[in-house]
Amino acid sequence: MMVAVKVLLRGLGEDVTRDGLLRTPLRVAQAFQSAIKGYQQSAKEIVGGALFAEVGAGGGKGSGGGCGGMVVVRNIEVYALCEGCLLPFRLRCHVAYIPSGERVVGLSKLARVAEMYAKRLQTPLQFVEELAQAFADALKPEPLGVAVLAESWHLQWPGVIEDDVTVNPKEMVGWTPLMVCAGRGQFEDKGGDIFWSELMGILQLEGTNMTKPCAVEVDSQCAEYNISGVDDTAAAAAAVPEMIEAVKDLLRLVGEDPCRTQLHLTPWRFVRWLWTSTRGSRVSVPGLEFELDTKLNGSSWGKVNGGISGLTQLGVILESGEGAAAEVIVGELDLSFCSQCEHHLLPFLGVVHVGYVIGRGGGRLDRLSMQRMVRSYSCRLQVQERLTRQIAEAVGGSVMVVVEANHMCMLSRGVKQHASSTVTYASLGIFASDASARTTFLQLVGKRTSG
Amino acid sequence: MMVAVKVLLRGLGEDVTRDGLLRTPLRVAQAFQSAIKGYQQSAKEIVGGALFAEVGAGGGKGSGGGCGGMVVVRNIEVYALCEGCLLPFRLRCHVAYIPSGERVVGLSKLARVAEMYAKRLQTPLQFVEELAQAFADALKPEPLGVAVLAESWHLQWPGVIEDDVTVNPKEMVGWTPLMVCAGRGQFEDKGGDIFWSELMGILQLEGTNMTKPCAVEVDSQCAEYNISGVDDTAAAAAAVPEMIEAVKDLLRLVGEDPCRTQLHLTPWRFVRWLWTSTRGSRVSVPGLEFELDTKLNGSSWGKVNGGISGLTQLGVILESGEGAAAEVIVGELDLSFCSQCEHHLLPFLGVVHVGYVIGRGGGRLDRLSMQRMVRSYSCRLQVQERLTRQIAEAVGGSVMVVVEANHMCMLSRGVKQHASSTVTYASLGIFASDASARTTFLQLVGKRTSG
Repeated sequence: MMVAVKVLLRGLGEDVTRDGLLRTPLRVAQAFQSAIKGYQQSAKEIVGGALFAEVGAGGGKGSGGGCGGMVVVRNIEVYALCEGCLLPFRLRCHVAYIPSGERVVGLSKLARVAEMYAKRLQTPLQFVEELAQAFADALKPEPLGVAVLAESWHLQWPGVIEDDVTVNPKEMVGWTPLMVCAGRGQFEDKGGDIFWSELMGILQLEGTNMTKPCAVEVDSQCAEYNISGVDDTAAAAAAVPEMIEAVKDLLRLVGEDPCRTQLHLTPWRFVRWLWTSTRGSRVSVPGLEFELDTKLNGSSWGKVNGGISGLTQLGVILESGEGAAAEVIVGELDLSFCSQCEHHLLPFLGVVHVGYVIGRGGGRLDRLSMQRMVRSYSCRLQVQERLTRQIAEAVGGSVMVVVEANHMCMLSRGVKQHASSTVTYASLGIFASDASARTTFLQLVGKRTSG
Repeated sequence: MMVAVKVLLRGLGEDVTRDGLLRTPLRVAQAFQSAIKGYQQSAKEIVGGALFAEVGAGGGKGSGGGCGGMVVVRNIEVYALCEGCLLPFRLRCHVAYIPSGERVVGLSKLARVAEMYAKRLQTPLQFVEELAQAFADALKPEPLGVAVLAESWHLQWPGVIEDDVTVNPKEMVGWTPLMVCAGRGQFEDKGGDIFWSELMGILQLEGTNMTKPCAVEVDSQCAEYNISGVDDTAAAAAAVPEMIEAVKDLLRLVGEDPCRTQLHLTPWRFVRWLWTSTRGSRVSVPGLEFELDTKLNGSSWGKVNGGISGLTQLGVILESGEGAAAEVIVGELDLSFCSQCEHHLLPFLGVVHVGYVIGRGGGRLDRLSMQRMVRSYSCRLQVQERLTRQIAEAVGGSVMVVVEANHMCMLSRGVKQHASSTVTYASLGIFASDASARTTFLQLVGKRTSG
């Protein structure tokens, strides 16, 4: 498997012997193997001895209407590997069953079985269907009903290169949401709507407004990715077919058949993702006359007309000594990006906040140029610390760059820190020498968030 | 270890051969062993090969003021076992370091090392101090600074028996918060306040208003638990010393010395927790003339004077047929409880919502009586499903009982579903036969939550 990963890295034009990539093939191979280890487990094993005798009311059968009632575990957070493109996608699922009144299952088993089905190549709909069926089969005596509901978020295909000013960057590099559900027993019977209504009522106790999703037509959230769109430069023509073969090898090595219908386009999609999301350093942005890899200085940026007061609400006067010309901190906040972690070949995504100082009458950097510059540095195999420094150096002068990001490797892999996020910053000029300037900028960004 | 757990269960007056407890000794022993497995790991091993070359600005040293800046991983969620009472407590920690400009560490390692230190007997202050020191030692070259900040929540000692009407039940069974921090390098130097301010600024980017905690005087959040207060009935006098010996055995079996100062009172505290939090079924509540274990009927409850309209904002007229007397759903919401999961000997805690029907002029159940009844059923080794049914049967008539709970076994153990919560409900009478009555009550509870 490590050989296949090396083919992918070389295909991207990378030097597989450089420090940051040295152990990447090992990490990727381990992560891939761990991401599909659910095939080796079964729900019955997990549920195993954790079925406990528990009578219903008056010893009778529990049901949605009986005293046994419904048992619901809300907000089980898992990540699964998308069958359509091999990227992890997030699932927040809610599992309900109606005990037959004789046995209940240990609550943590419901979460464990969900985690097991997430450790497979999945689509959201397949996940909820398999999970519902597994509970119907594994719980003995058979529960009167089982329902599984999942909110799913899949990374959006990055339109990283062709972006223009009308696109909302937040939506662009965000997540595509989808809601799916599956039922067994009373939840799929005629009249099952009553039970779904009750389940929705229970989920709404947390204040979320939720309705039962309709049948899903397009299940895979990456089905619409254009697979023919890998660019046809000479480099791509040479590297891409080889990379696709490498991904097929990866699939074969974990026992999958890359020819089965659902996986047919997967290697293409994965390679296209890798390819297009690491082209940043080779892109020439039409209409901007600078080479993105070289250091940018103020004069090569678009300038915005108008007085300082109109520039931004973040403007703050720095009185730099008596009689001196006042300077202004200008901020461009929430410049979004989606980059690839070079240690795991997994996306990390978030926002960049740039603060810089201009004198009165100084030119402000154009937001679109700024966004493109951020995209350019993020569209490659990266680490967040380096991205932060590169953006700061590109802007130059007195600048502070703050990057807030979520790393798929932290969310979806072993460490499972769903709530964690990483912040890095870099500062130059007055921001490097004056701590109060840094604190001021951080406070301004913070105010915007909470306001 | 299983022998020791059986001694504890027998001391509580339980039959260790009953279905629900059969595998409890095994589960408790496994969980205990897993909760302290961090002693076998070291930060240096974990960080190992995950140090990557990464220059600072211009190849120079990064610092809070240099272009390398600070690297912060926010919101790492872990549970640790309290050294003072052996109950798990929650830590949400934030880790920051200032790279020296030559090497950065893989971000997930910061979370992994935090998890390692959580898998030990801990106090919040000890946790942040050990973690900060570990990063200062394990990162090579030595980082310019390390800061660890943790918000900690410890279960409050339950005043389950002596409650009276003036106590806010939410606070009673909630969590005691504490904030602690530790710094190394530039964070502890003179002038380190600047770096702390910046770190606070970064944590505030998420909108939380946070200030650096002062030095903590009382570190252990259970230090004030009264250890002499185990009641002196004949049963306690006989069982408790034996149970304390069993806990000491548990500690010895995992290589701890139960005589060292910090652990001296721990077995007492743990046994007191178990003892007092499972006394529900034997308690006689002064001033209420019913035996809590027998089925309650309306006449044995305190009644509230006044017309129906004044009863509760949740009142809903059910028109039960033409000309029939209108009936009213009355709700008592957010009755708090803290119970003990009989499968893991770990607390689960949450709230109970009770809805019941009375005719015009019918007596309403007194909230305090209701709260005491809930406490009585929860103060024992329980499972949530049974608790729900027992409360419903105790109220009797047309009743719906909804229990929302967080299980420490789901939060703190292997499955690590920090956001998950479990809902069960039971219904009798009109709520059992009429699905719309159930849905109506759920909606009413939900409105209260979101409103």
